[in-house]
Amino acid sequence: MTRATLPQGFRDFSGKALSERRYILTLLERHFVAYGFVPLETPAMEHLATLMGKYGDEGDQLLFKVLNSGEALRGLTAGNLEAPASQLVKKIAKKGLRYDLTIPLARYVAQNKHALYFPFKRYQMQSVWRADRPQRGRYREFLQCDIDVVGSSSLFHEANLLALVHQVLTALKIKGFQLHLNHRKLLHALADQIGLGAQEVFFCQTLDKLEKAGWEKVATMLASKGIGADSLAVLQDLFATQGQQVLLEKLQGLLADHPLGIIALDELRKILDYLHQLAPKAGNALVLDPSLARGMGYYTGAIFEAKVPHSSLGSIVGGGRYDGLTEIFGVEGIEGVGLSFGLDRLNDLMREQNLFPENIENTTQVLFVPMATEMEAIAIDYLGKLRQHGIASELYPAGTRMKRVFSFANKKQIPWVVVIGSDELTAGVISLRNMVKGTQKSCNFATLLKHLNTEA
Amino acid sequence: MTRATLPQGFRDFSGKALSERRYILTLLERHFVAYGFVPLETPAMEHLATLMGKYGDEGDQLLFKVLNSGEALRGLTAGNLEAPASQLVKKIAKKGLRYDLTIPLARYVAQNKHALYFPFKRYQMQSVWRADRPQRGRYREFLQCDIDVVGSSSLFHEANLLALVHQVLTALKIKGFQLHLNHRKLLHALADQIGLGAQEVFFCQTLDKLEKAGWEKVATMLASKGIGADSLAVLQDLFATQGQQVLLEKLQGLLADHPLGIIALDELRKILDYLHQLAPKAGNALVLDPSLARGMGYYTGAIFEAKVPHSSLGSIVGGGRYDGLTEIFGVEGIEGVGLSFGLDRLNDLMREQNLFPENIENTTQVLFVPMATEMEAIAIDYLGKLRQHGIASELYPAGTRMKRVFSFANKKQIPWVVVIGSDELTAGVISLRNMVKGTQKSCNFATLLKHLNTEA
Repeated sequence: MTRATLPQGFRDFSGKALSERRYILTLLERHFVAYGFVPLETPAMEHLATLMGKYGDEGDQLLFKVLNSGEALRGLTAGNLEAPASQLVKKIAKKGLRYDLTIPLARYVAQNKHALYFPFKRYQMQSVWRADRPQRGRYREFLQCDIDVVGSSSLFHEANLLALVHQVLTALKIKGFQLHLNHRKLLHALADQIGLGAQEVFFCQTLDKLEKAGWEKVATMLASKGIGADSLAVLQDLFATQGQQVLLEKLQGLLADHPLGIIALDELRKILDYLHQLAPKAGNALVLDPSLARGMGYYTGAIFEAKVPHSSLGSIVGGGRYDGLTEIFGVEGIEGVGLSFGLDRLNDLMREQNLFPENIENTTQVLFVPMATEMEAIAIDYLGKLRQHGIASELYPAGTRMKRVFSFANKKQIPWVVVIGSDELTAGVISLRNMVKGTQKSCNFATLLKHLNTEA
Repeated sequence: MTRATLPQGFRDFSGKALSERRYILTLLERHFVAYGFVPLETPAMEHLATLMGKYGDEGDQLLFKVLNSGEALRGLTAGNLEAPASQLVKKIAKKGLRYDLTIPLARYVAQNKHALYFPFKRYQMQSVWRADRPQRGRYREFLQCDIDVVGSSSLFHEANLLALVHQVLTALKIKGFQLHLNHRKLLHALADQIGLGAQEVFFCQTLDKLEKAGWEKVATMLASKGIGADSLAVLQDLFATQGQQVLLEKLQGLLADHPLGIIALDELRKILDYLHQLAPKAGNALVLDPSLARGMGYYTGAIFEAKVPHSSLGSIVGGGRYDGLTEIFGVEGIEGVGLSFGLDRLNDLMREQNLFPENIENTTQVLFVPMATEMEAIAIDYLGKLRQHGIASELYPAGTRMKRVFSFANKKQIPWVVVIGSDELTAGVISLRNMVKGTQKSCNFATLLKHLNTEA
């Protein structure tokens, strides 16, 4: 006997939980299309060579590798086993599972560059797989929702993406969210100014700890690298400054002589101007945040993140501008800007803030219950008529105790149950039960139709 | 440098091809819900133990197995290599990829049997993976669309499924399709009657060749097992008989003494009666087909298939009733009836019959093109207004040659391009180009809005 269980870190989705996810996905998709993004779906498997070495050493470990089919293992020798594990893997696995949606996008763009038009604005909502240690809120299969604008350097796209995020989160009714904006070149310039230019990675990784660990901890870490009290005071002041204009002026003063700093501030101003024109209300939610680093990653320009302050959930959207998307595939000069919505986090936040509409499950409206086989024909006739009216309905075949049928209707959250017994058959009526209120009355089919059309 | 290619048998979907698939899926889903089916999504990976041994020896070979993460290969010894390949696989792979949607359903039902209500009517539209040799029309990743009614023996469900298939294929406008219906117990009884009772598998597999190979070939194969001319004549006559009533009467005469034959005919009559009540038009498309076997498989009752005769595509829907769905997980007595829509074949058929609506791609309606940065502000203002009206629109940032912009609009099939140059800025008008007709005219923004609302 096989045990009916799932591997750790994997989930089934059904009922309300699935309806909630689809509610978010449908809303996201509607906005992506309204902003001119087109859908893309890539396969679950890529050549392992496409994926390896793209996500760092840890990523290589966390990639799910798919065993070659057929006689792959037949040819292994004892000598093979003495080779490093990574070589052995290459011998028996040539394919891997999608780890994110960015490398597949890069592969797709490089592969189809002559057929595509640029800027290529694509959205993609698909599962990715990571062999991470499962823990609360971290799964081995999860859905990513990415949008990217590939092949344009215009800063309008940064503003357009921020406007989209603002409109989506507003449409989802998420309360208190902020859009954080920074620039990779600003981080670089700041690191230079305080004497950490050669250790930008350390600088960025330290800044990422600011929200959780607090300034004192960050200051201690920076001080350990020899950063002086003056520089720390400057940073502390910057990170505590409220208000875009004041902050921009402080940064302007601080970085007036730094070429990258000048570029960064100029670009940030342009993005803010575009955003103000495009979505004035998004400006209210925007926080210019010189401490936002997002693990440094591969960003080269703007960096952004959406989050709800004081929520335990971390960021719900993150992204930025990057260069050389397709360079690994030998195609130079294609830059892009994009972001990713975290569906699981959005979903948790929506639940936390109680934002899902009631009765979100798109379930059957009417259940017909013939008490015996003689009443099935008339019930089936009514069933067909309701379906013609586009009303989701089903029939519970005769022969089951009424108690069990009502329990079925309750569990499936069906609001109306129509019982047809011999009395009803004789009188040409139906017995209509409102499962929400628990009331029951006798009426004819025309009245049922009217009921459904007014209460729908 | 990594080569930008996909592994054989895998596909990207974008543009028109993806829109076509989504058109079918959306229509399927709408009907599934109207018939009371609820969605289920299961993960891409299951325990390999859940999957192995469920699809026959060939299936075990074709299962994609996922290498254990971490140090899985570190512990392998030369001794391990001498063990049979299947044991070695078990040592290094504990998970496998979804091979169909039936075993995951069985696992889900067994795992959640106390929380579920029965009949559990679920639909599931997800990818499955098979390490088959790729060839034309056969892929290693493809989408299955399954509906099943689990935990009810009522024959109403058979009729309900057939009515659903009829309504879906009619809504897709597929021409000339037929619904073929047979019964596993009828096949069993026929095999008995002609003296092949002990070789039912051979009998069913031979019948499956009837459509492609023709009667002569099938007769030769049956004769090789010692089936006499009389029996062959009976079969030939049965398979050539047109008309449900005539055929039912012939079968009744032939199988009057066979207990399973009597059950099968009784059930088929009931299904036909239900179907006639539920969807009289479906009766016209229904073909009672005593030669339909569907490779025997695990069916125990009705067997059905939808196909377009004389099409090269084979069946587009197939299914039937089965017993003991969850037995492999130690849960007895749960039977079901279900069917599967083949998305790739449906898609090919829709193309063959030219059934997709024109302009199926849900693309941007209006592209704003400011000729220089001074015109961006007004273009962005218009863009925001159109988006408020729910009209998908985007902006092509200033600084690109008009020829390239028009080529972009053409490739993306955007019907309207709004150009704003210095003349337009001064005069407070826009230049509106109809990309379909190639016409251009000057108008104001209000006129543009009116245009879009009337032509939409």
